[in-house]
Amino acid sequence: MKAKVHVTLKEGVLDPQGKAVQHALGSLGFGGVKGVRQGKYIELELAEKDPKKAKAEVEAMCRKLLANTVIENYAIDIAEK
Amino acid sequence: MKAKVHVTLKEGVLDPQGKAVQHALGSLGFGGVKGVRQGKYIELELAEKDPKKAKAEVEAMCRKLLANTVIENYAIDIAEK
Repeated sequence: MKAKVHVTLKEGVLDPQGKAVQHALGSLGFGGVKGVRQGKYIELELAEKDPKKAKAEVEAMCRKLLANTVIENYAIDIAEK
Repeated sequence: MKAKVHVTLKEGVLDPQGKAVQHALGSLGFGGVKGVRQGKYIELELAEKDPKKAKAEVEAMCRKLLANTVIENYAIDIAEK
């Protein structure tokens, strides 16, 4: 079973990496970029077969390791197959 | 208009960051993780109003800056609203 996790900075948290990308895009001639936020995208291959249990397990992973919940949000997508 | 970009390593390209996460998850007691691949997730806020033009613009950004097309794939999602 596959899980897709998006970890993004919470609203209001400064994103210097995103700002750097925005600036670089501006220098390359892409003027119409009003904002950039950069996050992480993690694909997990799980042994767990039950979608509910898999989601609970990935949530625990996010809280313990993948996301810093003080400044980051996470979203979990369980892909069956 | 918002664009969401996923940049992921191509199949077969080594992902040391993903391996490190997998190892760390194992140390934390999450044994059922068979693989981890880590990519980037970028949200762009664009001035462009036309979805087709926006997509073409973001594709150019991916090729020129956001992705290293030798080892990375990118996927673009244009969110209308």
